[in-house]
Amino acid sequence: MDDAARHREKMQKIKAARDRMMEGKTGEKGLIIVHTGPGKGKSSSGFGMLTRCIAHDMPAAVVQFIKGGWGTGERDFFATHFPDQVTWVTSGEGFTWETQDKDRDIAAAQAGWAKAKALIRNPEIRFVLLDEINIALRYDYLDIDEVVDFLLSEKPEMTHVVLTGRNAKEELIEAADLVSTMEATKHPFRDGIKAQAGVEF
Amino acid sequence: MDDAARHREKMQKIKAARDRMMEGKTGEKGLIIVHTGPGKGKSSSGFGMLTRCIAHDMPAAVVQFIKGGWGTGERDFFATHFPDQVTWVTSGEGFTWETQDKDRDIAAAQAGWAKAKALIRNPEIRFVLLDEINIALRYDYLDIDEVVDFLLSEKPEMTHVVLTGRNAKEELIEAADLVSTMEATKHPFRDGIKAQAGVEF
Repeated sequence: MDDAARHREKMQKIKAARDRMMEGKTGEKGLIIVHTGPGKGKSSSGFGMLTRCIAHDMPAAVVQFIKGGWGTGERDFFATHFPDQVTWVTSGEGFTWETQDKDRDIAAAQAGWAKAKALIRNPEIRFVLLDEINIALRYDYLDIDEVVDFLLSEKPEMTHVVLTGRNAKEELIEAADLVSTMEATKHPFRDGIKAQAGVEF
Repeated sequence: MDDAARHREKMQKIKAARDRMMEGKTGEKGLIIVHTGPGKGKSSSGFGMLTRCIAHDMPAAVVQFIKGGWGTGERDFFATHFPDQVTWVTSGEGFTWETQDKDRDIAAAQAGWAKAKALIRNPEIRFVLLDEINIALRYDYLDIDEVVDFLLSEKPEMTHVVLTGRNAKEELIEAADLVSTMEATKHPFRDGIKAQAGVEF
C-alpha cells in the first residue's frame, strides 16, 4: 500500500470513529475544538471561553504545553482570581529554541499529556484547554494517534476540549467537531512594533 | 473619476494617515486590531485579551454593539468580578433580524459609538473592545469614514482598540495595525449540534 492509500485509510478510520461518537447525538454535547493557523487569537479565544465557563459555573482546566517559561498574563489572572474554578497545569518550559534540550521538551510534553488525560477523564471538569499542544504534536513530542484515539474514545460526552497552536495535524482536524483557522491578514511586527502587554501576553 | 479610481484614492489616503501616525514609532504603541472572518474566536479572543489587561492592571472597556439582547457569559463574568477594572457598555439590542426595527438599530449603534469615542479618548483606559462593531459598519448604521478618521486621529498613542465582527470593511483593514481573519474550517452546526454554554456564549 502506498503512502497516499495508507493516509486515506487512516483518515477514514478517524472519520468512522468520529461518526460513531456522534451517532444519535442532537442538541448539546461536549465538543473537540481546534484553534490553529498563523494569526492571533488561538490561545486568547481559549482564555475567553474560560471566562464563559466561570460565568456558567462550569469547572475548567488548562494545560499549557509550551509557554511555561513565559510570564503570561492569563496564568496570573486565573490563578489569582479563580483558583477554585480553573485548575492550571504548566507543562512546557518555553519553546524549543529557548530550552535547546529536546529530551527535556519531550519529557515536559509527556508529563503535560498525562495530566491532561486525568483532567479530561474527570467528569466534574467540563472544559479543558490544551494550550499550544499542536506544537508538541507537530514535533512528535506527543503521538498524534494516541491523542486522537483518547479524545474519541475516552472524553466524557459533555466535556469540551480545546486544542490550540499553529500547524494542527490533519488527523486532529478530521477528529474535531469545530476548527477555526486564524489567518494573519496583517501583523504589526512588520512595522517594528514588538509584542504588547494586554494584547499578546 | 470612476469608482475604482475613487476607491484607490480613498485607500491611499487612509494609508498615508496611518503612515503618519506610525512615523518614528518603534517598540511599544497602542494598536488598532481587527478580528474578522466567519470562524469562531473573534469576540472570545477579545475577552481573553481583557483577562490579560486585568492581569497587567490596565483599565479596559467594552462596548457591545450587537449582542445586547443576548444573555452573554462574558458580560456576567466581567460585571460580577471586575466592575472596577472593566467598564461595560451594552449598546445593541440583538441582531437586526430579531429587532426588525432598523431605526432603533441605527440609534443604538450611534449611541454605542458616542460612548466608544468617550472611552477611547479617556487616556486612563488602555484597552477598548468594540465588540461586533463590524456588523454595524457593514449595514452602514455607523459611517466607516468617521470611525477610521477618529481612530487614526484621536486614539491616544498607548491605547489598544479591538474591533470585532465578520465582514470588516476594507477601509478598516487598511487602517489597522493587526488583522486576524478567523476561518471556519469546520463547524458543528452541520452535525445538528446547537450553540453550547461555555463555548459560544
